[in-house]
Amino acid sequence: MPNLSKNASKLTRGFASDNQAGVLPQVMQALTEANHSHAPAYGYDPWTLDLQQYIETCFGPQTRVYPVYNGTGANVLALQAILRPFQSVLCAKNAHINEDECGAPERFLGIKLQTVDCPNGKLTPQDIENHLHYRGDEHRVQLKAVSITQPTEWGTLYSKEEIQALAHTCHQNGLWLHMDGARISNAAVALGLSFEAFTVQAGVDVLSLGGTKNGIMFGELLLVFNTELNSEILFFRKQLTQLHSKMRFISAQFLPWLQMEWWKEPAAHANLMAQLLAKGASQFPEVQLAQKTQVNGVFAYIPKEWNTPLMQHMPFYIFQPATNMARWMCAFDSQKEDIHRFLEQMKQLSKASDVFLEL
Amino acid sequence: MPNLSKNASKLTRGFASDNQAGVLPQVMQALTEANHSHAPAYGYDPWTLDLQQYIETCFGPQTRVYPVYNGTGANVLALQAILRPFQSVLCAKNAHINEDECGAPERFLGIKLQTVDCPNGKLTPQDIENHLHYRGDEHRVQLKAVSITQPTEWGTLYSKEEIQALAHTCHQNGLWLHMDGARISNAAVALGLSFEAFTVQAGVDVLSLGGTKNGIMFGELLLVFNTELNSEILFFRKQLTQLHSKMRFISAQFLPWLQMEWWKEPAAHANLMAQLLAKGASQFPEVQLAQKTQVNGVFAYIPKEWNTPLMQHMPFYIFQPATNMARWMCAFDSQKEDIHRFLEQMKQLSKASDVFLEL
Amino acid sequence: MPNLSKNASKLTRGFASDNQAGVLPQVMQALTEANHSHAPAYGYDPWTLDLQQYIETCFGPQTRVYPVYNGTGANVLALQAILRPFQSVLCAKNAHINEDECGAPERFLGIKLQTVDCPNGKLTPQDIENHLHYRGDEHRVQLKAVSITQPTEWGTLYSKEEIQALAHTCHQNGLWLHMDGARISNAAVALGLSFEAFTVQAGVDVLSLGGTKNGIMFGELLLVFNTELNSEILFFRKQLTQLHSKMRFISAQFLPWLQMEWWKEPAAHANLMAQLLAKGASQFPEVQLAQKTQVNGVFAYIPKEWNTPLMQHMPFYIFQPATNMARWMCAFDSQKEDIHRFLEQMKQLSKASDVFLEL
Amino acid sequence: MPNLSKNASKLTRGFASDNQAGVLPQVMQALTEANHSHAPAYGYDPWTLDLQQYIETCFGPQTRVYPVYNGTGANVLALQAILRPFQSVLCAKNAHINEDECGAPERFLGIKLQTVDCPNGKLTPQDIENHLHYRGDEHRVQLKAVSITQPTEWGTLYSKEEIQALAHTCHQNGLWLHMDGARISNAAVALGLSFEAFTVQAGVDVLSLGGTKNGIMFGELLLVFNTELNSEILFFRKQLTQLHSKMRFISAQFLPWLQMEWWKEPAAHANLMAQLLAKGASQFPEVQLAQKTQVNGVFAYIPKEWNTPLMQHMPFYIFQPATNMARWMCAFDSQKEDIHRFLEQMKQLSKASDVFLEL
Repeated sequence: MPNLSKNASKLTRGFASDNQAGVLPQVMQALTEANHSHAPAYGYDPWTLDLQQYIETCFGPQTRVYPVYNGTGANVLALQAILRPFQSVLCAKNAHINEDECGAPERFLGIKLQTVDCPNGKLTPQDIENHLHYRGDEHRVQLKAVSITQPTEWGTLYSKEEIQALAHTCHQNGLWLHMDGARISNAAVALGLSFEAFTVQAGVDVLSLGGTKNGIMFGELLLVFNTELNSEILFFRKQLTQLHSKMRFISAQFLPWLQMEWWKEPAAHANLMAQLLAKGASQFPEVQLAQKTQVNGVFAYIPKEWNTPLMQHMPFYIFQPATNMARWMCAFDSQKEDIHRFLEQMKQLSKASDVFLEL
Repeated sequence: MPNLSKNASKLTRGFASDNQAGVLPQVMQALTEANHSHAPAYGYDPWTLDLQQYIETCFGPQTRVYPVYNGTGANVLALQAILRPFQSVLCAKNAHINEDECGAPERFLGIKLQTVDCPNGKLTPQDIENHLHYRGDEHRVQLKAVSITQPTEWGTLYSKEEIQALAHTCHQNGLWLHMDGARISNAAVALGLSFEAFTVQAGVDVLSLGGTKNGIMFGELLLVFNTELNSEILFFRKQLTQLHSKMRFISAQFLPWLQMEWWKEPAAHANLMAQLLAKGASQFPEVQLAQKTQVNGVFAYIPKEWNTPLMQHMPFYIFQPATNMARWMCAFDSQKEDIHRFLEQMKQLSKASDVFLEL
Repeated sequence: MPNLSKNASKLTRGFASDNQAGVLPQVMQALTEANHSHAPAYGYDPWTLDLQQYIETCFGPQTRVYPVYNGTGANVLALQAILRPFQSVLCAKNAHINEDECGAPERFLGIKLQTVDCPNGKLTPQDIENHLHYRGDEHRVQLKAVSITQPTEWGTLYSKEEIQALAHTCHQNGLWLHMDGARISNAAVALGLSFEAFTVQAGVDVLSLGGTKNGIMFGELLLVFNTELNSEILFFRKQLTQLHSKMRFISAQFLPWLQMEWWKEPAAHANLMAQLLAKGASQFPEVQLAQKTQVNGVFAYIPKEWNTPLMQHMPFYIFQPATNMARWMCAFDSQKEDIHRFLEQMKQLSKASDVFLEL
Repeated sequence: MPNLSKNASKLTRGFASDNQAGVLPQVMQALTEANHSHAPAYGYDPWTLDLQQYIETCFGPQTRVYPVYNGTGANVLALQAILRPFQSVLCAKNAHINEDECGAPERFLGIKLQTVDCPNGKLTPQDIENHLHYRGDEHRVQLKAVSITQPTEWGTLYSKEEIQALAHTCHQNGLWLHMDGARISNAAVALGLSFEAFTVQAGVDVLSLGGTKNGIMFGELLLVFNTELNSEILFFRKQLTQLHSKMRFISAQFLPWLQMEWWKEPAAHANLMAQLLAKGASQFPEVQLAQKTQVNGVFAYIPKEWNTPLMQHMPFYIFQPATNMARWMCAFDSQKEDIHRFLEQMKQLSKASDVFLEL
């Protein structure tokens, strides 16, 4: 192997995003083991068939799984399965589908996203009820779905009961409930629940189940719990450019990741690292946590002049420029030493003299 | 590692598609080596930066590379870069973009594909000239691009001179030339040319450079040779759901695959296997080659009653049901014994008694 | 009234298109009479309600009528009602939806048009059967509808029996049959049938019923005969920018045009004028009719050098540049003297000396 | 003429919408006069050529006019001319393009509308500046245009200076400014300005100029002031189903309506009627004006139990169900007696005994 990427040796860990981490070693091993002989393409291989079977065991026999390439693909395909072009989906203003997908839902589906300003990233049943006027009015888009992110883009969590309440309001009003689970592992360990407990068992109809933020190389699973919604998805997955030919290499990652619970310990570790970082950082009088740290992201208002010196050591993003709210994401491979080093840097910037940095 | 995919042990090789083969061992090794530390996401990692640099060395300093997930993604993104929604692209009727992408170009771009019935899969300059009427007529879509596949979907090749002639006619008429190079490795070894020789140097403007049919796990490269076309591609790649977060794992495959010419020997081998299969099969009086075997696919008319017994041994597809034209694709890991076994099976079905099957 | 359009006084009649004619005087009178008081907008006015009622009387109580602005709008809305984005419609290559709508169906619906080269503009049941492969194959668009134009864009007619046969093949295979009736009046008088006889009674599912080519100022009717197809059309009509606020002014034209048969005599006259023109022109040895003249358009191959001198007197279009096939459309207000003058001009260009021009 | 619409005789005036009124008598006369001979279709007729010429005289020689069918068509075409699919437009949340077009902009253009909650329907330069983050970030839609409605959907007006300030902020930041002028006549008379004064002369780049709410039968004008934006509009107008074949009948209405100022007196009258209604209604203690009445619409909070009895006499809409805000639109043919009758009805519902209803 040539020395192709000499710059790669300089790479360091940071808090920019959990998708900057690599792949779990056991996932890499699973990929290697799947690499033998020929396998039917486009999802008819043994790994994908086994994955479908395992999904049924966990989520119920009516569940169908559609492996795709990424989260945006899973979200767009989910909305495609449940919406007609004159219908709309309700979501938080800071939802990934609204702010971070470069308008993919509008572009592909022709739909409107109706957004609610949610200070903590979470929708409520009242938010849904506020958008039920104008049903049947041909001048208005017709609300047909609600999309929530679990955990939210701001690191907060819906409880199982909150999801049940949202699902109840949805179903009473003929709406579908979609969950964007890009970081679903982190939610599950934080809630102490299985994936199925706060998705299909709480009334979710369609789930984007993500793994790249927790050790998967590529791929995401679209899970459809309602049998009414399956008839056209195979065609749409292909048309949306989200059908992988060598699908065995997506399924061979997710199958043991789910079955062997490879998702659990890494997510728990990332959540713990975020707790430590939140606890440490909040000791500084200049730092104010913006949200309760429930999973693997810390959201904090920091002095603007801290941005450059802090980022030099450990890259991260300012998530809300107007308030200089920083986002610090911890990954499955974040280390206590990373956090310690980061807090040390803060200490040099802070006026506080009495901060205790042991983790 | 649990025995997750017990059915996987029963997998056998066949001629259904070159994308049913696995991943080159050296590619798997490259993926493993890329798996360390954190790397910037979305293409700002060292592997992708190195890939851009290497591409410039080969294809010229004006070239830009955009890694995407798959061939349909690369093709749609290529057409997105060069077409406005009221414009059209000319292609062969049996082009992948027309027949095998479930209408993705029409769906995403809103464009019309204008098709030509090409008995050998190849467009000619005259085909382009036949479609130049109605320019400026607002009732008609406006031809703006030509898309060719190299090698074609029917296993035939454009010579460098033929591509140059097409590019000349395109550029004289204000059209862009796109090449779908899903099997570009097989074309390059068959022509005895480098990739650049029959693409950028022959006048191609935009290239979909594929690898999954020649040992890559996932990913395809969009290469843009004309600097006018770059300004919006980053946004469109994201919006088209084709931006991978952990892009290092696409680039880390393609970088050595290109630089160390990992593509060459496997493609040459697949082409050779197809030659042997074509030579062997054409000895049977019941078998008639439909196209000259120029790369790694054999296209042959066979008796309909052979379909089932032959497929039982080695899966393949009937590519043209009306004429019972079979397609037998060879892959980098096809073996002489596979071909021998297949021909033996033909021998049992054939009336011929004097066929000599040594390869 | 000021002399606003001084150039308007120089206008003359020609054979360029039947939509260059004006409005039937009785239609203008109907518009004037509808102009009083306030009326509910968007189709809830008395004229539109009466139109719905009258349509039910003629086409059956299950029929629904949706007034729109124009033919392209009606066609796109019809296809929207019957197609999902991964499905396709089969039509003649020279169909208006394929060649003369600037790609509107692909743009709005994301669908593919599958086309057949029809020398006389007419599809056959065999054409449909040739496109039934690949059902259920997610890589292929899925044929779901057939669209025919009556009369065709080349001035030919489907008999009632031919339409029945097409409908039969469609319905046996789960396809919908759409008819583009932009010149349906001319077809009806030529066939000696009512509109309903060769539409709903022949198995057509959705009809674009046009009037602007026969004396209507603006507007076209979408008629839906199958009750399954109505549930979403109101939303789509609005979204497709085809919902007129003051809809009474569309309905007030069509209601008496249908009920009082205002369409009949003008269409019969236009057809007769075309017969006379065809008969006269075919006397010249340089002129060869391309199609049988069945309605109000004459299609004829003429010498290229005749184009300019003929067009100077009476504008018309060359419909097929490669063969110099001219199209001469007659309108409800075309006059024998127009034809006579046109033939006189031909006489001056022709080598023939013995042509008899009395009509 | 048969008695086709017997229900039409029962029609009465109300306050539901200014598009429930009919057509100005002089407009009907202009239509009748335009109905002679043949005229080139699709905008090459003398009326449309004269209209283009007149528009240049008023709005400047660089201005181009594109007649379309309706306001939604004009708005979508305007946005099509200025936006690429990954870009966005900023508008008030209650803008017509956001709330009353059934998602047509998203459907056709694939764009995102970014909305601002504007209590009086008006955007400010600060609103624009708040949306300038994330330029160049491929994960985010890119703001490229601002759309304002003049007068707003809530009956308020931008002053010329306010429009200039918005245009200034737009142009400093590379954004285009679109104005939806569905009721532009009412704005012009209220401001005492010509159309050009608060559009092209204030920095507006693209204008939807409406007439159907002020005496036009059908049609709206798209005016493009910036020559960069014209190159593709003809194609898009056709593709968007907004190209009328017999365009003379749109232009023949707008030409004298503009040139002879047929728009002025009717709009002034409608505005005056709204003033009278606002003045009268605000005397009732139960009625509270929601907005200053600047043009021809009155927006008022009324007791919910008044809805049914008031609507029985004169139809109108509740514009904001949560607050029971009613909208009362006056048209060019609203009469003092209508207002008087309406106020009389209020008097019967009100507790107030001392209201003076003379107008």
